[in-house]
This record gives sequence, C-alpha cells and structure tokens, in this order.
Amino acid sequence: MDISRLQTPAALIDEPRMMCNIARMQQRASALGVSLRPHVKTSKCVEVARRQQAAGASGITVSTLKEAEQFFDAGFADVLYAVGMAPSKLDRALALRRRGCALTIAVDSVAAAQAVIATGHAFDALIEVDCDGHRSGVQPDDSLLIEIGRTLHDGGVILKGVMTHAGSSYDLDTPEALQRLAEQERSRSVRAAQRLRAAGLPCPVVSVGSTPTALSAENLAGVTELRAGVYVFFDLVMANVGVCGLDNLALSVLTTVIGHQPEKGWAIVDAGWMAMSRDRGTQRQKIDYGYGAVCDLAGAPLDGLIMTGANQEHGIVSRRGTADPDIAQRLPVGTQLRILPNHACATGTQFSEYHAVSGARPAQQWRRFDGW
Amino acid sequence: MDISRLQTPAALIDEPRMMCNIARMQQRASALGVSLRPHVKTSKCVEVARRQQAAGASGITVSTLKEAEQFFDAGFADVLYAVGMAPSKLDRALALRRRGCALTIAVDSVAAAQAVIATGHAFDALIEVDCDGHRSGVQPDDSLLIEIGRTLHDGGVILKGVMTHAGSSYDLDTPEALQRLAEQERSRSVRAAQRLRAAGLPCPVVSVGSTPTALSAENLAGVTELRAGVYVFFDLVMANVGVCGLDNLALSVLTTVIGHQPEKGWAIVDAGWMAMSRDRGTQRQKIDYGYGAVCDLAGAPLDGLIMTGANQEHGIVSRRGTADPDIAQRLPVGTQLRILPNHACATGTQFSEYHAVSGARPAQQWRRFDGW
Repeated sequence: MDISRLQTPAALIDEPRMMCNIARMQQRASALGVSLRPHVKTSKCVEVARRQQAAGASGITVSTLKEAEQFFDAGFADVLYAVGMAPSKLDRALALRRRGCALTIAVDSVAAAQAVIATGHAFDALIEVDCDGHRSGVQPDDSLLIEIGRTLHDGGVILKGVMTHAGSSYDLDTPEALQRLAEQERSRSVRAAQRLRAAGLPCPVVSVGSTPTALSAENLAGVTELRAGVYVFFDLVMANVGVCGLDNLALSVLTTVIGHQPEKGWAIVDAGWMAMSRDRGTQRQKIDYGYGAVCDLAGAPLDGLIMTGANQEHGIVSRRGTADPDIAQRLPVGTQLRILPNHACATGTQFSEYHAVSGARPAQQWRRFDGW
Repeated sequence: MDISRLQTPAALIDEPRMMCNIARMQQRASALGVSLRPHVKTSKCVEVARRQQAAGASGITVSTLKEAEQFFDAGFADVLYAVGMAPSKLDRALALRRRGCALTIAVDSVAAAQAVIATGHAFDALIEVDCDGHRSGVQPDDSLLIEIGRTLHDGGVILKGVMTHAGSSYDLDTPEALQRLAEQERSRSVRAAQRLRAAGLPCPVVSVGSTPTALSAENLAGVTELRAGVYVFFDLVMANVGVCGLDNLALSVLTTVIGHQPEKGWAIVDAGWMAMSRDRGTQRQKIDYGYGAVCDLAGAPLDGLIMTGANQEHGIVSRRGTADPDIAQRLPVGTQLRILPNHACATGTQFSEYHAVSGARPAQQWRRFDGW
C-alpha cells in the first residue's frame, strides 16, 4: 500500500536507511575485531533482527523474557537477557533453556546468584559490571565481583564472563568525551575479566556496548562482543549526541493535519504522545526538538518545524522560535507529515506494527510485539 | 491469582478505589444537573467502562476510531469521537455509523466540515470550541464558528452542538484557579452555543470537561454534558493538581527488586520507562515524583521513596533528597513493590492487560487494547 493511504498515525521504517545503519555498525564491530550482538529491544521486530543477522550479527540481546520467547520462536537461538535476573523469572528462563534456547542471563548480586543456583540448572550467566555509575552492576574492583563469580562457578552455573553498558554516553555530545567513555567502558570491563581470571574463574566473554560508545571506540582490546540497539533506527537524541545525522533516522511517525490555530502559527496533527511517546530526551540536549522534528511525506525536514506540544492524540506542530502565520495555507487539513522521534525505542513501542518503505515500492507491514 | 505470583512488571487496578472514583464523578455530574460521558481513552478497557455505565454514565467519549470500534463491538452504541475529524478517517467513521453506532464526530474548520459533507452521509457532529487556548477548537466569538455551523447544517450534517476541553487545568493547583477555569470553560462553551442558536442553528448539546474542572465547577448552567477520563484511576499529576489524594490512586505498576547500588541508596527494579511510560508530568508540579511513588505490595506508600530514574526495563528506586543506606536490607532482591504513576493514561497504555485486585480476592485479568 502507498504510504499516503495508510491510516494515521502509523510507524514508518525507511528500509534503505535502516540497512545502511545495520551495515555501518556491523562494519564497525568487524573493524574493532569483536562480534556484534544487536539489542532487539529497539525494534522488537523479527524482520528487522533477521536483517541484522544476515549482515553478520552473532546472536541477539533482549530486555525481556517475552522478547527472548518471541525471537526464539522465530529462530533466534543465541539470546542474552541483559537485565538482572529476578528470582521470580527463573522458571520462565528455565522453560526457554529446556526448549533449546541458548539463553544467557545476567546477575549482579550474590542473592540473585544463589537464586539461580537453587534451580539446580546449569544456566549460562554473565556478571553485570558497572562502568559508569549510571545504573546497575558490580564495581570492577569490588571484592563482590569475585564473590559472585565464585558463588556462580562453585554452584554449578556456567560463568561465561562479564557484561557492561555505558548508558551515560547518552548524556555526552563531543567525540572526545565519547571516546573517553568508550575507553572507560572497555578498560573497566576488561579489568573485571582479568580479576575473575586471576581468581581462577572462567571469563571467556567480555561484552560491552551502547550505540554512542560502540561508534566512538578507538580500540576494543580485550573485549569479545559489542551490544548496541538504537543504531538500527537512530533518533534525534543520537543526532544530538553526534553519532548520526538527521538523514540517518529510519523511524518516523506518519501523521495527518486535522486543524489549525492560524494566529498562533499552529497546525494540529493526529499524532500526540500516544504515537510519539512521552520521551523528551532532547529537552536537555543541544537542540530541543519538542516531541519530534517535522518532515514532509517524502521524509525531507521542514525547516524549523517541530512538534512543540502533545496531548494524547493531538500534536501541535509549529516553528521553533518565530511564528508561522501561513501554516494553514502551507499545511492544509489532510496534509500528511512524517515526524522524526526523540527516542526510537520509546516511539516504536507505541505501535504494534511498522510499515517498511523503500522508495516508491508499496509499504510492507512488519509486526512488532510488546509486553513482558 | 494472588498478585505476589504475577510476572512483573504488571498493571494493577485497585477495584474498590476505582469504584469510589467512578461514584464520585457520577455524583458530581448528577449534582450539577448534567449527564456524564466518560472518556475511555484512560482505561481502553471494556470492564472499566461497563462499571462507569452501570454507575449512570450516558455514552462514552473516545480518542481514536479503534476505541470506537472496540467499544461498539462490546455494546457501547453512543460514542463521541472527540478528536478533530481527519478527512482520511471518514470512511471508517461511516462504516461504524452504517453498523448502527451512534457515532458523533468533531470538527473545528470549514475544510473538515466540507470533507464531512462530501461523504453525502448525515453525520452527527459537534463543533470544537477553544476555551483556554491550550490546543484546538474555534474561538467562541469568532465568525468562523457560525461559518462552520452553517456549512455543516446547510450541507445536511446534523449539528448537535459544541464541545470544549479545558486541558490547561492540568497546569493549575489551587481550588480558586480551578474554579475560575471551570467557569471559563462553562461560559465560553455556553457563549458559543448561544451564538449558534442566535444564528438560527441548532445546538442541543453543550459538552465540557476535564477531570480537574469537572471536580471544581460550582455550577454548569447551560451545559448538558460532562466529559472526563483520568478520574477513573487518578494519578500523581491529579494529586498535585489537588483533586484527589494518593489513597485515591487506583492504578499502580507491580515490580520486583532485581539489584542494588547500596552505597548510593538505590534499589534497581524491573519496571523502567517501558512499564511506567516516559511521562514526567509531575516534574514541574509541587511535588516531583520522578517516574512514580513507591508503595509496598499492599499499596501503602513507602515514605520518601520514588523512582528517581528509569531506563527501558530498569527503574532506580531511592529516597528523595537524603540517601537510604539500608535499602538493600529493607528491600532485598525479590521484593515486590507497587509504583503509583505520574499519568494513568500514559502508564496504562504500556500494558495489554490489567489485573484488577480487591482485598484478598484473586486478581482478575482485564484486557486493554491500544493502537489506532
């Protein structure tokens, strides 16, 4: 179906841009001598992940057991569940393992390690390491690291190694700062691996990654695997961080103009926060895009137009700074627009399907799943 | 099922609280002498709307045609689609009308009115009036109001009246300011109705509403119908506005502690922004609750604990202001918590089902739909 005939709002994937993003990250991983394990939480879409796999990815990373189940059912057997294991989720993880899924789990406490051991099953596990203080994980120099490693190993769990995620990279916006953080992510995870090995514990895997650090690392000596997610679509936050341009953004929301407030220079569209998500990730960045950057139906940015406000099913499109008195003439009722999102992971999840578009070809519908 | 056995994160509805909220708004509408048309965009759940109907509601308000279709299929025939009609959605609206749905649509431009007329079908329509400048709608004193009314009426559309929504009420937090805005909402919509009638046009319906103004209006003379949505669950934003207490909040997210950063006083939980939504509606209010207020499994607030940070599937729970050095002892790995959300409409939509709980009874699963 031609995209101009889709019911709005709708989530569009620009497939050529996505393929370019996939190739770029895969080339990057290859050049750095590590394997790539894409984080499929961004797309939650089998068709997208298959393209990442075809480009050379080794396994996938997931953020929920629902993703693990759905992707395993679609033929993805090598799955890292990269969120600290809750004891109450072990039954479900075990069921996946028994069905043949090579599911690896993550722990960062003795309590979680003991819960894993108590299942009596030889799970594959990584220890989560904190490389930048932004969230969870054990400090690489903490004695707790060895304690968890020994608990797992002695308890019959297969200690595969360490993983970390430099999530604070989203707050940076210069190549120098990103390179420094990438090196910190590398060195701290390698340090943790060295300490485990020095304690006589196995640590074959050293897994790092975030889209900004993956694209900024100068070397990944000692690292075995890179994880990254949002690069597959990129978004306005990533453009502000400086690791992509607006013309790399593969996800957009198709919307229709439903009214105006001409004296304010507003067009009202049928994509509100329900379609864009409430993510305001660019609010504290170099350029604040409101709820998104406005493009024409072909995907070309309309100079200075952003979504300045959003209610549940209403978006307010207006020009940043100066008023736009002719907006009702230029964008009459019925005009279709495409809005580039702040955060592709958050916007994607508002939709149960994507429409993949490529030039003048009819859009293809790709299912996206959600929930837990 | 006992809620402590649910997979987390999960959306819980405290049914007694919800029933109390439903009764309160219905009594309010009755006392003001108007009918109540609940906005079901908040719950998107047939079981919730049936309870609103049983309490005395007259019809429902929807924000998408998908809601109209789903609720019509569930037996709700009297439906107001309260978002300005996009020409491209008229086919779908017409299909609903032909199936017997008493669907009323909204327009606020001559262009939209002409598109409605062009279908050749005698739609029921309201003209959207702007009462507070926050979004869409025609100014009550603008000649455009009469022009749209005459266009619709002369074109064979059944002009039912006017509707408005004082959405700026979410920015207020004193009873006096809310009363003033409620009176402004009333008087401007009644003014629009009077002008239409003076021009010889029909205007039987005068529909107003937002949860804060509905609960603050001292009289609704000239108004026929009240619309409100979020009152069914209430949320932290509404508590800050001052129209409910924390013990009226009926929606919460059940989550599990998966780790700690003890020296920071953090517990890490398995509800991130994917579960809570990215809504930070309390950020600029009296009390900033971060991504939500933390309660124990029974729903009692844990003093000063909020979700201070959120990634996709990780939430950071910590005490506002002062550190909480014993958090790992008090909330060990595996502890279940309930998080009260900033914005019930945004948090609800992250889930495809609710678990309705009432005292010690097993939770009932209620389906929630989404999309467009």
